[in-house]
Amino acid sequence: MESCEMKKVLILGAGTMGLQIGVLCGASGFEVTIFDAFPEALNRAEARVGKLAHRLADHNRFAREKVAGALQRIRFSSDPEDAGKDADFINESVPEDPRIKAEVFARFHKICPEHTIFTTNTSTLIPSMIAEATGRPDRFLALHFHDCETTNVVDIMPHPGTSEAALEAVRGFCTAINHFPIELKKEQPGYVFNTMLSEWMGAALSLASKGVASVEDIDRAWMGIFRSRFGPFGIMDSIGLETVYKVTAYWAGRKNDPRGQKNAAFLKEYVDRGDLGKKTGKGFYSYPEPEYLSKEFLKGIY
Amino acid sequence: MESCEMKKVLILGAGTMGLQIGVLCGASGFEVTIFDAFPEALNRAEARVGKLAHRLADHNRFAREKVAGALQRIRFSSDPEDAGKDADFINESVPEDPRIKAEVFARFHKICPEHTIFTTNTSTLIPSMIAEATGRPDRFLALHFHDCETTNVVDIMPHPGTSEAALEAVRGFCTAINHFPIELKKEQPGYVFNTMLSEWMGAALSLASKGVASVEDIDRAWMGIFRSRFGPFGIMDSIGLETVYKVTAYWAGRKNDPRGQKNAAFLKEYVDRGDLGKKTGKGFYSYPEPEYLSKEFLKGIY
Repeated sequence: MESCEMKKVLILGAGTMGLQIGVLCGASGFEVTIFDAFPEALNRAEARVGKLAHRLADHNRFAREKVAGALQRIRFSSDPEDAGKDADFINESVPEDPRIKAEVFARFHKICPEHTIFTTNTSTLIPSMIAEATGRPDRFLALHFHDCETTNVVDIMPHPGTSEAALEAVRGFCTAINHFPIELKKEQPGYVFNTMLSEWMGAALSLASKGVASVEDIDRAWMGIFRSRFGPFGIMDSIGLETVYKVTAYWAGRKNDPRGQKNAAFLKEYVDRGDLGKKTGKGFYSYPEPEYLSKEFLKGIY
Repeated sequence: MESCEMKKVLILGAGTMGLQIGVLCGASGFEVTIFDAFPEALNRAEARVGKLAHRLADHNRFAREKVAGALQRIRFSSDPEDAGKDADFINESVPEDPRIKAEVFARFHKICPEHTIFTTNTSTLIPSMIAEATGRPDRFLALHFHDCETTNVVDIMPHPGTSEAALEAVRGFCTAINHFPIELKKEQPGYVFNTMLSEWMGAALSLASKGVASVEDIDRAWMGIFRSRFGPFGIMDSIGLETVYKVTAYWAGRKNDPRGQKNAAFLKEYVDRGDLGKKTGKGFYSYPEPEYLSKEFLKGIY
């Protein structure tokens, strides 16, 4: 906390990402408010947040002793006035629709203090799409988290109108929550990691959807040649096939890309069957012991 | 050798790949002829083959005791008649030009026995482009090696006219040289691994060439989030930036792709300076101790 003057963090959206980020902030000593416009979403969040905090500790994101303090410092609110009036810092994880995000920020702009920094955790949009609508473009930028259980890498992505002071405040916030920022010098949908990830997964999906090779052989080629613990289809199962499908279909539609559309159709068969990956016990592989983690999988490759 | 009826292997082209494959075949008990039309290329090859064989043994591709036998079983020839008249199996690594490859195969078709299987080690072409020109399309397919020092994964890629018998012979050959085949069900330029690799590298190059993030931050994002020992720029330094440049420029031209052209221009600056990667001591990183392998590189990421 020493490196950060901000004390009160407001998380917009009580989904899994919002809760994880809220817990991380609580564990780092911030006072955290988690806001959601839907009281039933808040009720679900309150019921889940303890388990999520313990899972983050299980994954060594912070010491087990910090769980209780983190939970004590988190409160829930569905009242924008109450949630926003003394926030120093906002991170937003509401649905991935620029109109919704713009409306939410415009609303909190009227409520929040002048100094409050607004950040979006968007995965697919870029800040300049909604910067003006936030009412405070100079104090607005993207701060994007990955799966908080597995990594502390975050992306910082300003738009051309973001002030140096706001950028510096976000850097300080990252230090305070013990996260490592990859700072983008230009806006890029998908940031750095996700840009590479999605092209890599897209290439793998295209090989499978065209029938060039089996899912297993595609993973085997990557794992065998690079001595990697996983290949693209194992990773997709971990991300969740519904998420991969949605992102694939979104970009295929936006870019009018036939290859992406074919990949989306390939994924949709799994999604329609309810084979969503690791979390449902079945996706490209069957869990909890997927074939790609067995000794047999790379037998003969050395 | 038990699983393979073929005894005599002819390698066309005495470059690094051809020599490595020849040594692997020799170490597995095949009688090997390495052919090159240029006597000076053969002289260079004869001078290099011993060192190459020891390097393969250093990398545990076969037991050290097999080096001497492998070298004894290899002969060099620049006489097509002499090289081809009793070959059972050909693997071709001549320059990556379909006209040259077609001419070479047509010539050896007239010399070789009826039963000889013809395979191409092409990286970028597909067999159907030259199948008819070989004179024996049914006994022709691609058998593509990766860096023989680091992996025993190979790609088998038939074209629609390849016979099942030829395919089966190539499978037996892979078993005989202790290699693991990824068998493609359809033709695909770049096969399986290289298709994914080139899209992954292309995404990384595009981020750097557009100025979105630094080479180091792009590698750091991939390595930090995936706990990988390397990122795309570290890998490109290992492949060699001239090779990456040539392949990038080739596909950018063929597909008339502005992003690929920008990536090629970005790589060309390194190539023009002579910074070709690991082998010249400098590329994206400096060798023998590149920054990405230092402890500092991922400091703060956990």
